[in-house]
Amino acid sequence: MTKLSVGFIGLGIMGGPMAGHILSNQYPLTIYNRTRSKTEELASQGAQVVNSPAEVAAASEVTITIVSDSPDVEDVVAGPDGVLEGIKPNSVVIDMSTISPEVERQLDEKLRAKDCSLIDAPVSGGDVGAQNATLAIMAGGDREVFEKILPLLEVMGKSIIYCGPVGSGQLTKLCNQILVAVNLLAVSEALVFARKNGLDSSVMIDAVKGGAAGSWQLSNLGPKIVNRDFSPGFMVDLIIKDLRLVMEAAGTGKVSLPGTALVSQFFRSVQAGGQGEEGTQALAKILEDLASLKS
Amino acid sequence: MTKLSVGFIGLGIMGGPMAGHILSNQYPLTIYNRTRSKTEELASQGAQVVNSPAEVAAASEVTITIVSDSPDVEDVVAGPDGVLEGIKPNSVVIDMSTISPEVERQLDEKLRAKDCSLIDAPVSGGDVGAQNATLAIMAGGDREVFEKILPLLEVMGKSIIYCGPVGSGQLTKLCNQILVAVNLLAVSEALVFARKNGLDSSVMIDAVKGGAAGSWQLSNLGPKIVNRDFSPGFMVDLIIKDLRLVMEAAGTGKVSLPGTALVSQFFRSVQAGGQGEEGTQALAKILEDLASLKS
Repeated sequence: MTKLSVGFIGLGIMGGPMAGHILSNQYPLTIYNRTRSKTEELASQGAQVVNSPAEVAAASEVTITIVSDSPDVEDVVAGPDGVLEGIKPNSVVIDMSTISPEVERQLDEKLRAKDCSLIDAPVSGGDVGAQNATLAIMAGGDREVFEKILPLLEVMGKSIIYCGPVGSGQLTKLCNQILVAVNLLAVSEALVFARKNGLDSSVMIDAVKGGAAGSWQLSNLGPKIVNRDFSPGFMVDLIIKDLRLVMEAAGTGKVSLPGTALVSQFFRSVQAGGQGEEGTQALAKILEDLASLKS
Repeated sequence: MTKLSVGFIGLGIMGGPMAGHILSNQYPLTIYNRTRSKTEELASQGAQVVNSPAEVAAASEVTITIVSDSPDVEDVVAGPDGVLEGIKPNSVVIDMSTISPEVERQLDEKLRAKDCSLIDAPVSGGDVGAQNATLAIMAGGDREVFEKILPLLEVMGKSIIYCGPVGSGQLTKLCNQILVAVNLLAVSEALVFARKNGLDSSVMIDAVKGGAAGSWQLSNLGPKIVNRDFSPGFMVDLIIKDLRLVMEAAGTGKVSLPGTALVSQFFRSVQAGGQGEEGTQALAKILEDLASLKS
């Protein structure tokens, strides 16, 4: 079976290793990155480097994009020298960025006008998941198109779930971020309550984590908060971006999310304090400040 | 080794099966319950039924109490015909109710004046945990006393953790309830966001539960909310009581808990709507109301 020709745009901390897995699985790969130096390693391994997203699309049956935010995806796909200018009929764009579900729907419209289609497929699992090809991938779009590109997604991730029509991958990712953020507020409040009342926080975590109070956030970020380790697994600046997307989509969808709104504001306070590049667990420091606990 | 003589006060949905395990493990057992009919089954199995908490304490080296709220424990221990009126020196009271940590400290003082001591040992795991002896038990008090009564706790529970001085069991249980309540707000908001935006909620849960968004609340109560099953695992009325204890202790300890306060108010709204005897997952209906989603 001939492998699909693949294009990859956005070779950052996530995209770099993801593109590497595609290449090492013998897919013909064409790449573009705004900062050209980031293409060098993959080029040395056999990837074709080109000068624009349009050139990537012209050379590829499937073009993958993974960039920062909604305007970046719009620019790469629909801007000057963008994917739409080079793409051939019956091609597929897979956007693996975390962006607005509404923007994905708009781009899908534009691609359909060229007899192409869009799969939105944001990921979770962080840079470690990208390196080890253990990402969770949440995909939206036409089901037949999804089935066609599934083997390609399987090269990058471990849990790949089809979530529904285009935009559904993003909506699922946003649900993920609601859960992550509000669960972390739970962990932060329990820890500040424990500490201020003189409990041994580590013992508290061990006592409750196996039952109804248990969560990934408690088991993984709770001990980091106790040990004053605020290095980023996932950065505050990035969760603020994602929660902005949640609140935008909540506005479009007419949903009221008081807990998510509250924790978003606290994350903004972490950012305001100059700690936007710390890990999300820095949220705990805001709760400590509110209780006049010194770090 | 002669087994400790045990007294048990409070044979409700939790206490009944817990006392049963003690009896079936060959501890001599003396029991009292306000509603006497609830003593009959254990009496038929060999437990000694008496007429007051004082008589229980007089017959027992260790007296266990598990009743509803702080005033009930105060009444049973320090009220007329209470434990303090019958207790012999060097005895232990284990309070397994969920009540105020401060009240436990006050009762410990009174017990110490009689050369006795208190272990506060609230539980989690619900009626199923009580029946199967798989409760999590969070204990506070003198460490030596804890070690002495540990084999007795092991008859009722699976995970038994020593948390620190008297009151620490309650404080740990309250941390557990903060986590449970705020995690459930996370789940409720993610589900209402998913539903209002047209996602398949079950698919969303499956897509995210294995990663950083995962929690006991999501895996266990999420599907109940999707299936409109609001039968109680743990009742709204009871979590409201526990969150009241949290906010009282937060006041004493000078801690600010904005997320817990928010979710407490939503649980009160469930109660106000006449659904206090539903399971805690009925919280989701408040978020649905806020988004004008019909059940």
